[in-house]
Amino acid sequence: MAHDMKLTTRATDFSAWYNETVLRAELADYSPVRGCMVIRPRGYGIWERMQRQLDTMFKDTGHQNAYFPLLIPQSFLQKEAEHVEGFAPQTAVVTHGGGKELEEPLVIRPTSETIIYAMFAKWIQSHRDLPLLMNQWANVVRWEMRTRLFLRTLEFLWQEGHTAHATEAEAEEEARRMLNVYRDFMESWMAMPVVTGLKTDSERFAGAVRTFSCEAMMQDNKALQAGTSHNLGQNFAKAFDVKFQSEAGTTEFVWNTSWGVSTRLVGGLVMTHGDDFGLRVPPFLAPIELVIVPIWRTDADKSRVLEASRGILADLSGWERRKTGKLRVHLDDREGMSPGAKYYEWELRGIPLRLEIGPRDLDAHQCVLVRRDNRVKRTVTLDSIGEDVSDLLSMMQTDMRVEAFERREANSIRGGIEYDRFREVMEGEGAFVYAGFCGGIDCEQKIKEETKATIRVLPDEEFRSAEAPATCLKCGEKSVVEALWAKAY
Amino acid sequence: MAHDMKLTTRATDFSAWYNETVLRAELADYSPVRGCMVIRPRGYGIWERMQRQLDTMFKDTGHQNAYFPLLIPQSFLQKEAEHVEGFAPQTAVVTHGGGKELEEPLVIRPTSETIIYAMFAKWIQSHRDLPLLMNQWANVVRWEMRTRLFLRTLEFLWQEGHTAHATEAEAEEEARRMLNVYRDFMESWMAMPVVTGLKTDSERFAGAVRTFSCEAMMQDNKALQAGTSHNLGQNFAKAFDVKFQSEAGTTEFVWNTSWGVSTRLVGGLVMTHGDDFGLRVPPFLAPIELVIVPIWRTDADKSRVLEASRGILADLSGWERRKTGKLRVHLDDREGMSPGAKYYEWELRGIPLRLEIGPRDLDAHQCVLVRRDNRVKRTVTLDSIGEDVSDLLSMMQTDMRVEAFERREANSIRGGIEYDRFREVMEGEGAFVYAGFCGGIDCEQKIKEETKATIRVLPDEEFRSAEAPATCLKCGEKSVVEALWAKAY
Repeated sequence: MAHDMKLTTRATDFSAWYNETVLRAELADYSPVRGCMVIRPRGYGIWERMQRQLDTMFKDTGHQNAYFPLLIPQSFLQKEAEHVEGFAPQTAVVTHGGGKELEEPLVIRPTSETIIYAMFAKWIQSHRDLPLLMNQWANVVRWEMRTRLFLRTLEFLWQEGHTAHATEAEAEEEARRMLNVYRDFMESWMAMPVVTGLKTDSERFAGAVRTFSCEAMMQDNKALQAGTSHNLGQNFAKAFDVKFQSEAGTTEFVWNTSWGVSTRLVGGLVMTHGDDFGLRVPPFLAPIELVIVPIWRTDADKSRVLEASRGILADLSGWERRKTGKLRVHLDDREGMSPGAKYYEWELRGIPLRLEIGPRDLDAHQCVLVRRDNRVKRTVTLDSIGEDVSDLLSMMQTDMRVEAFERREANSIRGGIEYDRFREVMEGEGAFVYAGFCGGIDCEQKIKEETKATIRVLPDEEFRSAEAPATCLKCGEKSVVEALWAKAY
Repeated sequence: MAHDMKLTTRATDFSAWYNETVLRAELADYSPVRGCMVIRPRGYGIWERMQRQLDTMFKDTGHQNAYFPLLIPQSFLQKEAEHVEGFAPQTAVVTHGGGKELEEPLVIRPTSETIIYAMFAKWIQSHRDLPLLMNQWANVVRWEMRTRLFLRTLEFLWQEGHTAHATEAEAEEEARRMLNVYRDFMESWMAMPVVTGLKTDSERFAGAVRTFSCEAMMQDNKALQAGTSHNLGQNFAKAFDVKFQSEAGTTEFVWNTSWGVSTRLVGGLVMTHGDDFGLRVPPFLAPIELVIVPIWRTDADKSRVLEASRGILADLSGWERRKTGKLRVHLDDREGMSPGAKYYEWELRGIPLRLEIGPRDLDAHQCVLVRRDNRVKRTVTLDSIGEDVSDLLSMMQTDMRVEAFERREANSIRGGIEYDRFREVMEGEGAFVYAGFCGGIDCEQKIKEETKATIRVLPDEEFRSAEAPATCLKCGEKSVVEALWAKAY
């Protein structure tokens, strides 16, 4: 039944394909609350694995978790001028509590700089208290009008790192370090390559001095801002009076950074790797890495095949992999469902490997392994099944990353594109376009108005073109910096 | 300096002792938002370890994590009559979003039955979809007037399990199973013994058929309700139309359970184990299990002792313990702080074991281990330090549990207490009193008015007295059930 209902193809309607994939793979569901979604177990399982790995990486770089209040007095938001301008229009406001109207309304945190730096002011006295390196796993609410599952929801889950340093240089180094932690995670764990770089002022975080970003290319050639890291300078330190006594005995304001990634990453994973059969999850993040589908017709076959399947399940479940721990294996022994229907369902859900085993395989002491990424089948002996599975999973993790990288590069344009051609590309198939930029806000805004493309980042050195572009994409004046242009989510 | 500031003793003022311990051990801090606290890294580290272990236990019993919206339409709360009566007065209400007044106000979840069962109605069609076993880690808000760090705050962190079953018996079994998971966790991991049993109607969860609870005795002889599990019957299924087609082909309402524990457990841990020197954390939940304090006077000694300390740190950090993984060790090599000041600080923070090592110890190839629980010192050879530390930690985990158990039993009264004596006890030192109960709401309420004591639970069989009490504590009529009375947090 279900396996006759094909997904809309990506080529037909990428946006419809995305929604169908998220819903039918049971990653998330719409809720009765406008703009808020429910993250279902198959989606939350991916997020949990993301969380665990990121948390390890944060702790390895010296950060500690803490938890700050959900509700923030409205007046706090107003202490940093740019910050309030950026976030106040997006807030959900609590006006009543315990049946009474509140004297001062409380906003649900859209981000926690204000409440966290108010606490930092209490905890930091001396240079010996620095650096202070904290992280919080939390939910936040931003009142969005147009929402999309995972990509933009009123409420979302995220982590927000917040740090305080004695010097500007240390804060810059921290903001850069965490950008690289994100990049490493996205590339190694999500198999999702990113371009890193600096945001222009128009895309800077409200209250930051400099915002760095990781930008990934989705399969419709649009960019997804996948994670950002901010050098906040002393803006919040001054607004919240976060001072310390330096080694020299002077009183100084601290230098802050903040950085975050969210459940949006799950959407990025879907749009990076999914195909017309549904989701494809990189093995490192798959809640189930391998599913065993036993095949039988007669009752006699059934009991032999199920017994063998349970043996394989027990064997493989004990198998330990270096980075990701014990192999996560599931046996699909449901009755009254054909193997084909099961294949269809597990493909839709993106489980990396499928192991098929029937009576004839058993006679030959073998089974069939099917990769989800390229759907290639391979018959392997049961003697070395653990090694084969482990090798295939490692290979898939690499292959998926290479495939995504090559797709991005094939859809990137460098070196002297004419503006008319640029418009055509942005109206048509889209691309990552590396082009010259005069640095003028006018050119940036006109391009946005005319093509909907924005400067995603001023790319870091390793992403820049071998030859620096000579002229600005828009005005033709001298280029001062190379910019990466794309339409974005 | 700091180590001259003694804590208020428990005997002098238990409540002041508690607040000072939480604040000075840096578990939590007051925030500028009324009734909301900040959980600092040392407190959050304990909560993280609680979370990780509970999460494992939930998954081992077949539950999956998911995430549901923070904001719930006010009308949802109203669908179950008892539920709205219990929770509506406690809600925080969002009336404005994105700068506009909302058509329907949203409440911040005080608990998620309503939104979760609304989703269950969408996901459950057939008996094959049952049982549905879910859990959510989340923050909730209940508008409390009198708040206490960890014990009662406007916002708190918790987990809430929500399940749906095909039969009443299965739901009852699930509610009981999760109560036992809680008990096992509290006793084995928190070293906090609990009495389990059924709540009377007056203390039942708003919307439940039956509420079960784990009640722990704090050091002031008051009870802490540490975790509850509810058999919800079909109350929410009927309110949210959660139906399934049975194997026989009929359409039936599902049977639900819900169960939760919260950051309140951190408060319970403090009040169960703390002493007049500060916190004592059971090793299983301690973010740091052992702290190394090197002792030196001369520079020559300093470099030898620090080198040896780093060796011990590396050695011990590789040591793996069965239930709790790698040993968590910290080297306190801060300069300009006396060993005594360090001892004081780590005792206050409740770190289970302290390892002291100085030049003379080094000459003798030994060190000193000091247990935090009983402050007993022991000199051990460096040759078998891993085994010694591991054994001591296991012993402490057991000893702390036995100590808490014996304290509870020493402060429990069974078998025929006169009501006048009961009043005296409750006005004075407090106790867990097991006494007869006629089952009448009048007796329950009069006792509460006159003594502030409440029925904590109707204890499960293993906690009941050998001889069932003959008469009701209050009215002297025939007792129908034994009840556990105590004052409570």
